[in-house]
Amino acid sequence: MRPSGRAPDEMRAITIETGFTKHAEGSCLISFGDTRVLCTASVENSVPPWMRNKGRGWVTGEYSMLPRATHTRGSREAARGKQSGRTQEIQRLIGRSLRAVVDLEKLGERQITLDCDVLQADGGTRTASISGAWVALRLAVNSLLASGTLKADPITAKVAAVSCGIHQGTPVLDLDYIEDSNADADANFVLIEGGQIAEAQATAEGATYDEEGLLRLLRLAQMGCGEIFRAQEAAVR
Amino acid sequence: MRPSGRAPDEMRAITIETGFTKHAEGSCLISFGDTRVLCTASVENSVPPWMRNKGRGWVTGEYSMLPRATHTRGSREAARGKQSGRTQEIQRLIGRSLRAVVDLEKLGERQITLDCDVLQADGGTRTASISGAWVALRLAVNSLLASGTLKADPITAKVAAVSCGIHQGTPVLDLDYIEDSNADADANFVLIEGGQIAEAQATAEGATYDEEGLLRLLRLAQMGCGEIFRAQEAAVR
Amino acid sequence: MRPSGRAPDEMRAITIETGFTKHAEGSCLISFGDTRVLCTASVENSVPPWMRNKGRGWVTGEYSMLPRATHTRGSREAARGKQSGRTQEIQRLIGRSLRAVVDLEKLGERQITLDCDVLQADGGTRTASISGAWVALRLAVNSLLASGTLKADPITAKVAAVSCGIHQGTPVLDLDYIEDSNADADANFVLIEGGQIAEAQATAEGATYDEEGLLRLLRLAQMGCGEIFRAQEAAVR
Amino acid sequence: MRPSGRAPDEMRAITIETGFTKHAEGSCLISFGDTRVLCTASVENSVPPWMRNKGRGWVTGEYSMLPRATHTRGSREAARGKQSGRTQEIQRLIGRSLRAVVDLEKLGERQITLDCDVLQADGGTRTASISGAWVALRLAVNSLLASGTLKADPITAKVAAVSCGIHQGTPVLDLDYIEDSNADADANFVLIEGGQIAEAQATAEGATYDEEGLLRLLRLAQMGCGEIFRAQEAAVR
Amino acid sequence: MRPSGRAPDEMRAITIETGFTKHAEGSCLISFGDTRVLCTASVENSVPPWMRNKGRGWVTGEYSMLPRATHTRGSREAARGKQSGRTQEIQRLIGRSLRAVVDLEKLGERQITLDCDVLQADGGTRTASISGAWVALRLAVNSLLASGTLKADPITAKVAAVSCGIHQGTPVLDLDYIEDSNADADANFVLIEGGQIAEAQATAEGATYDEEGLLRLLRLAQMGCGEIFRAQEAAVR
Amino acid sequence: MRPSGRAPDEMRAITIETGFTKHAEGSCLISFGDTRVLCTASVENSVPPWMRNKGRGWVTGEYSMLPRATHTRGSREAARGKQSGRTQEIQRLIGRSLRAVVDLEKLGERQITLDCDVLQADGGTRTASISGAWVALRLAVNSLLASGTLKADPITAKVAAVSCGIHQGTPVLDLDYIEDSNADADANFVLIEGGQIAEAQATAEGATYDEEGLLRLLRLAQMGCGEIFRAQEAAVR
Repeated sequence: MRPSGRAPDEMRAITIETGFTKHAEGSCLISFGDTRVLCTASVENSVPPWMRNKGRGWVTGEYSMLPRATHTRGSREAARGKQSGRTQEIQRLIGRSLRAVVDLEKLGERQITLDCDVLQADGGTRTASISGAWVALRLAVNSLLASGTLKADPITAKVAAVSCGIHQGTPVLDLDYIEDSNADADANFVLIEGGQIAEAQATAEGATYDEEGLLRLLRLAQMGCGEIFRAQEAAVR
Repeated sequence: MRPSGRAPDEMRAITIETGFTKHAEGSCLISFGDTRVLCTASVENSVPPWMRNKGRGWVTGEYSMLPRATHTRGSREAARGKQSGRTQEIQRLIGRSLRAVVDLEKLGERQITLDCDVLQADGGTRTASISGAWVALRLAVNSLLASGTLKADPITAKVAAVSCGIHQGTPVLDLDYIEDSNADADANFVLIEGGQIAEAQATAEGATYDEEGLLRLLRLAQMGCGEIFRAQEAAVR
Repeated sequence: MRPSGRAPDEMRAITIETGFTKHAEGSCLISFGDTRVLCTASVENSVPPWMRNKGRGWVTGEYSMLPRATHTRGSREAARGKQSGRTQEIQRLIGRSLRAVVDLEKLGERQITLDCDVLQADGGTRTASISGAWVALRLAVNSLLASGTLKADPITAKVAAVSCGIHQGTPVLDLDYIEDSNADADANFVLIEGGQIAEAQATAEGATYDEEGLLRLLRLAQMGCGEIFRAQEAAVR
Repeated sequence: MRPSGRAPDEMRAITIETGFTKHAEGSCLISFGDTRVLCTASVENSVPPWMRNKGRGWVTGEYSMLPRATHTRGSREAARGKQSGRTQEIQRLIGRSLRAVVDLEKLGERQITLDCDVLQADGGTRTASISGAWVALRLAVNSLLASGTLKADPITAKVAAVSCGIHQGTPVLDLDYIEDSNADADANFVLIEGGQIAEAQATAEGATYDEEGLLRLLRLAQMGCGEIFRAQEAAVR
Repeated sequence: MRPSGRAPDEMRAITIETGFTKHAEGSCLISFGDTRVLCTASVENSVPPWMRNKGRGWVTGEYSMLPRATHTRGSREAARGKQSGRTQEIQRLIGRSLRAVVDLEKLGERQITLDCDVLQADGGTRTASISGAWVALRLAVNSLLASGTLKADPITAKVAAVSCGIHQGTPVLDLDYIEDSNADADANFVLIEGGQIAEAQATAEGATYDEEGLLRLLRLAQMGCGEIFRAQEAAVR
Repeated sequence: MRPSGRAPDEMRAITIETGFTKHAEGSCLISFGDTRVLCTASVENSVPPWMRNKGRGWVTGEYSMLPRATHTRGSREAARGKQSGRTQEIQRLIGRSLRAVVDLEKLGERQITLDCDVLQADGGTRTASISGAWVALRLAVNSLLASGTLKADPITAKVAAVSCGIHQGTPVLDLDYIEDSNADADANFVLIEGGQIAEAQATAEGATYDEEGLLRLLRLAQMGCGEIFRAQEAAVR
């Protein structure tokens, strides 16, 4: 039995509120249950210096938790003067995941930054971030297409992410904070609509796992991402 | 005529949504028109080292803008590795303003941190932060009173803040971003319910001003804060 | 009765020793009683990148206290690796105050940096800094005019600053360290010769104050700045 | 055909020179072909503050590349003043991987730090680091057992890591730099002797991959780690 | 012929103004010609953590140049966020030099920090700093002896420092900025009254030098330090 | 009697293994007894911004100790976020020493960086670094001459460095860690083949020393460097 009463392959409620902020070219507030992340897409008409004059664009991600997104207040990274290893790891994952579904040549020499700011955390903040970032990116690209700035759509597919883990011996989907704190294994999958994998990361925490365990987690992730793809579709339609 | 069509002494719509996040002891999302700030109050049962064993508590503020709260994306202070002078100035102002209405001895040896994170900016983010922080503080203290942790209420009054300025020769209340960018003088007043001043800051931008100008700005602020006090009262009742 | 025996509207002795250092284009050592600040003006023939090719110049301020300017030694900001919020707040105030009396277009594409280094502190270091910085600036601009580098004088007026406060119920002028530590309200006014206000900042410390209190502080500041204007005039003549 | 002429499931030559430095409690220079990493294990008789008085120890990893370990010189992280996201990600992985085979209670209140410094890089530096760190750890623990400091062996198994990837459509084992730069997918597996998985990370670079691809990479990793386990055994015997 | 017209073994005028600041336990403004350094000694009744409970004290030095002490303005180290290698090298030299004449056991568990802040630079700032720091230290220790805090004098001798160099083939004493910029060799000697050497540093700049050159520089330094010892004696008497 | 049983004028065994890493234009692993330093020379076809368009090159040094090069593990400078004063002092010395034997005009507009990474420390790491850096530089320049990139050899002579000190009253050559920890005086000499001095640094630790002592240390250094010059010659031939 999961602490939340959910079935092992049951996602939390997914909600996506688009246009949550007015300045960004694309934005949404995505919720996986009590985890809520504000995702914005910002378009700049230039690329970082090391990419200039190659006719290609860039997509990157940034991630942060508000200090009191969590049960106990964490110190502010800006005050500490540096981003933690965890933050940097997640930022790199967000950027790689979104670039997996963007044709950077079609994007042209512009950069889109996906800011994922966690307003409230209850497990799965990085997977909600990736899933919401795609929505913000889609909306921003839509407006570039509508204005004629882009002639061809650089987005090749949907991308979504979900966590799974082994909790008290059972593989479960979309862990909340309580499950996450006690899981024997903790995995994050970034999947592309159509069945391909962009990223798989599975870490043993208390107990290790085997090939069979890895496959069972991957199959749960495929179910979860199917549900997220439907929510993304509804949000951007 | 103001760009927004408002009368010189007219505030933007004020909304205060309490309980916006579930982990904080007190929280609200406050809006002054399109300016939206998430304010949370976090209670810790200890004080900073330099205050220990004095039988008194501490109230402090932190402030940040999400990178895309503004028209063009700003870089993240955590990524730059330091907080700007502007951020630090605002943080210090938030802390001082709230401490002006708290009896630190009644609070006992605990610290309350007021985090003000600007989700969307349209002028007046520091004054909305202070006004919302009071609501978050009030809610957090209410729960400490309800649980019996505090025996006597350490909050002595309401505190609110509002900006005013001289725009095209006319003193106006609660500047939005367009007015703020073109004001000849820019002032922020932090007022205490009942008529006292906690803080007055008035800066000449294009043109300087005189004693009469300062008084007219103060009187606008008194009107504006009156309205904020009523919204705070409604929010916490 | 003030600890120093001064009357409520009595400034400390003001001395301004010009040419205190030989390399700077303008310099002075200003004293407000035991508060002593070395102010230098450095002219550079370029402006920061974000201001280039606009035909306008820039005036900026920097501020620091020597570690043992104070009663007990403070750690060196260069050793800590960052400037405190207080330092940054004061630096921003110095820059704004001086820019209030400079026509940046007449200055042309050059930057003048006003360094204010506190050799000894006894209250009022920021106001002495602003008052001395004007003298250093005046001397530097005089040399640019004398050499023909500048054709027209970009300085439009004198600017001076003074602190006031409410000490044991009485509004007093130019607080020294002992008064400053015990004041109920603490204000800094930056005034322009002729009666205009460049900046007013008044903070309640122990007790709050009202409109009448604010006006009384402003009037003391007008008296104090009058005296500083005379000292500045004598120094640069 | 692989650029190196190796078969798809062929590792590069593995060499492990133990006792490479004399001060560390355990050390080795491990080579996977031209990738050479100096691994040292340092024992401290205390744990970080957040772990004290729990009767448990800690194992952590640090990682760095010498500036000219690579084809073109990289700047020194100590000179830049911060560790890159990549470095932090690898450090966290090294620590987690080694902790997967250590019983922290048997270790007692002491910390073992595994420093992995890459002297020369040719692909697979993180996997060589983990594999060599186990040898350094084993040697350090052996000396703690020999001296009677530890009564029971806290190491529960061997751990090793290897990279695999899809190169020109073919899954290959132990990528060198040339292959790594052109791989469609890049994976790192951390395996425990006996068949369990401690960590699986697979990232699509150019093309994405599917479940079948993930399994084929895992099977190559199992072959590669088998070979590393034998080299580790020979080194520590 | 030296640019200044001085004889090869002629020092610049030395002046030492004691009591330049009122808060420090000892202070002086020392000038070697146009080089002017404010030296203060601050006594703290504790030592750094790594020295505690050993019954010994510590003497340390800090050094900084005001931004416009030099011909062209340098950026402020506090603003850059770190101290330069040059600053750190000089700080370490100041501390070592003063510790060479202090019996740390007689000092007891207290620390004296010697702050050397260069108000104006014209060559030889580090040697003026060391020479002035001794005066500040002597005055601070005198007051500790006078108050009975110290029973026995921990200062064992005078210490002074001077620069020498080879300028256009001629060994010269006490280089000013113009000479220093063109010297073939640049040396700093820290000497103890009575003839012993605390520190010798001689660096070839354009041309290298030989044993004979090193000895000639040392003899010039002995002459120069003799003169500084007399100035120190006069200042503290 | 020296702890190592060496005669006062006896160096430790010197070994130089060239080509230790394959990517650098020049590299060696140099040992002075148990002190082992990896030195690499990296050629870049540009110079730092402040040197551009002057037709001259630059030679610079960087230095680091691996965390467990020493008896007890030191924290990593990259993790602490800054280089220590000691590291910066040594880096500056390495750069100056090598520039003393390079004709920067013949080098043309390119920079050679000499990285000295201490793999194992047992006293004398800075002198082994300088001596090994010359070998790496020589090898890198040889390859630039062989490829025709350079037409004329910019290296004018050999440079080597060695430490000496006064240990229990006796001047000794090439101190190991035990001697270094107990020496009364500690000196480093950088000498140029043929008899000239590039740098002399002699510091009193416990006891001070006199002119005679300085000369005796210099003569030991001349003997030691003679031996190093022969080892360098054998290594690069």
